[in-house]
Amino acid sequence: MSIINALPASEPTVAYLGPRGTFSEEIALSFYRGVEGCFTPYERIDAVIRAVADGEAAEGIVPVENSLDGSVNITLDTLAHEVDLRVVKEMVLPIRHNLLARADTKHINVILSHPQALAQCRNYLREHYPGAELVAVESTAAAAYQVASGAKNTAAIGSLRAARLYNLAVPAVDIQDNPNNSTRFIVLARDAAAPAGPNCKTSVICQINGEKPGSLYEILGEFARRQVNLTKIESRPARTGLGLYIFFLDAEGSLEDGNVRAAVEAVRERSIWFKSLGSYPICLVKHKAE
Amino acid sequence: MSIINALPASEPTVAYLGPRGTFSEEIALSFYRGVEGCFTPYERIDAVIRAVADGEAAEGIVPVENSLDGSVNITLDTLAHEVDLRVVKEMVLPIRHNLLARADTKHINVILSHPQALAQCRNYLREHYPGAELVAVESTAAAAYQVASGAKNTAAIGSLRAARLYNLAVPAVDIQDNPNNSTRFIVLARDAAAPAGPNCKTSVICQINGEKPGSLYEILGEFARRQVNLTKIESRPARTGLGLYIFFLDAEGSLEDGNVRAAVEAVRERSIWFKSLGSYPICLVKHKAE
Repeated sequence: MSIINALPASEPTVAYLGPRGTFSEEIALSFYRGVEGCFTPYERIDAVIRAVADGEAAEGIVPVENSLDGSVNITLDTLAHEVDLRVVKEMVLPIRHNLLARADTKHINVILSHPQALAQCRNYLREHYPGAELVAVESTAAAAYQVASGAKNTAAIGSLRAARLYNLAVPAVDIQDNPNNSTRFIVLARDAAAPAGPNCKTSVICQINGEKPGSLYEILGEFARRQVNLTKIESRPARTGLGLYIFFLDAEGSLEDGNVRAAVEAVRERSIWFKSLGSYPICLVKHKAE
Repeated sequence: MSIINALPASEPTVAYLGPRGTFSEEIALSFYRGVEGCFTPYERIDAVIRAVADGEAAEGIVPVENSLDGSVNITLDTLAHEVDLRVVKEMVLPIRHNLLARADTKHINVILSHPQALAQCRNYLREHYPGAELVAVESTAAAAYQVASGAKNTAAIGSLRAARLYNLAVPAVDIQDNPNNSTRFIVLARDAAAPAGPNCKTSVICQINGEKPGSLYEILGEFARRQVNLTKIESRPARTGLGLYIFFLDAEGSLEDGNVRAAVEAVRERSIWFKSLGSYPICLVKHKAE
């Protein structure tokens, strides 16, 4: 028996939105503590999702919704239109944004970050940097990296972890507009999760006949009459014309529950297009000491 | 009587998302043909909306939804949380995106545009410029302006009108991912429009008790039981915590119609927070010859 074979089976690869220092990485580390070696960073959210669909990664971690800025459209659109994956876990992370700059920076004219981070600090930026050019980049960590690698008069919005990783000063902490700032992340896989416990949700995507008045009302009725609570309903363009939508529905409970399963089956029958993302447990992630 | 007083009363100022060459300007010109003098460009969508709220402008024109990329969040959030305005008209414009560059550009490493324009050309960019850095700027016209003013190896995504205004070459036309690409614009004013004719809509924003299962179902029921068709339902964060939403509802018909008015009044009574954006006519805008 060779040494190689005696090693434990290789850990499954987990894809996340890189580079190092993103909130997604923080989630990933929190989720699989101490198993840093099997994480693979990708440059874009849709690339993370495709890596799972293509079998490059066993699981992928992507943000799906922020409490201030709403849904992450690229996540929803890619899940709906381009892959066939399941959600196996949801994690909720409190988000804290900070202004990061090189220690020798005197004036800040340009501020880089992920578009949602810029949006989440909109009021702070309008008040403190009304004339600054806001530049959207792929991630909060990419912003920190660009600032660290030398653009003058430039700052990034990112995590304190990113400041440490890229050796940046922190001229302002907690600059998010709202203290109730959390982001929901989901873990994606090709196969459904094991039946979920008590604290779990079920997600489906459907398109209904929008020409027929009351179609959405009837869909919601399938949940309401079975006392299944919907925690979220989100519309996104069906991409076949203005005014045509698909709906993302999150329901409390697991498909193991007869009422949830019956409601989902009824919705499937009423839909002209339907996709189940499965049932999955929810967990609240706490920040590590920073 | 002075000469000044003999002149016609000054035209009302119309605020739009500048600079020159944006789709909003194209809408503005289409809407008030030949009255170019009374348009004022603003740098950001929320600044357009605030200009109307503050009385700097009589009306403001902002994009509210694209058929591929969905709602324009800054428009919805500003209308919901920061001002008290009415919609007086809706205009639908087919969107055509083009790649714009200086005639002497050989290699394109950086592509600038408004985030929604970048999103609407996502597949094209991934296929043709997989390594290019995508940079979000305030508007398609600002992107064209920056390219024209000299960044090397840089291209913009924008209109043919912007190419003409900024003297740029057009290496590729119609690069949007989907031929069904239209954007809805709304005209905002401080007072409600005159009662609308047959082809019109009514918009409201409401927050319901999300703790109570079936609350949204009951809201939709107020429309369904009166045979009022909803053309759109969109959720946005209430900004008071993850999982709390406000809903934007668009209904067919005018508040002059008894059924619409009764449904809206019932929704107002069921809501814990409610705002009416009024009733307004819809028109389809055709591109001018380019």
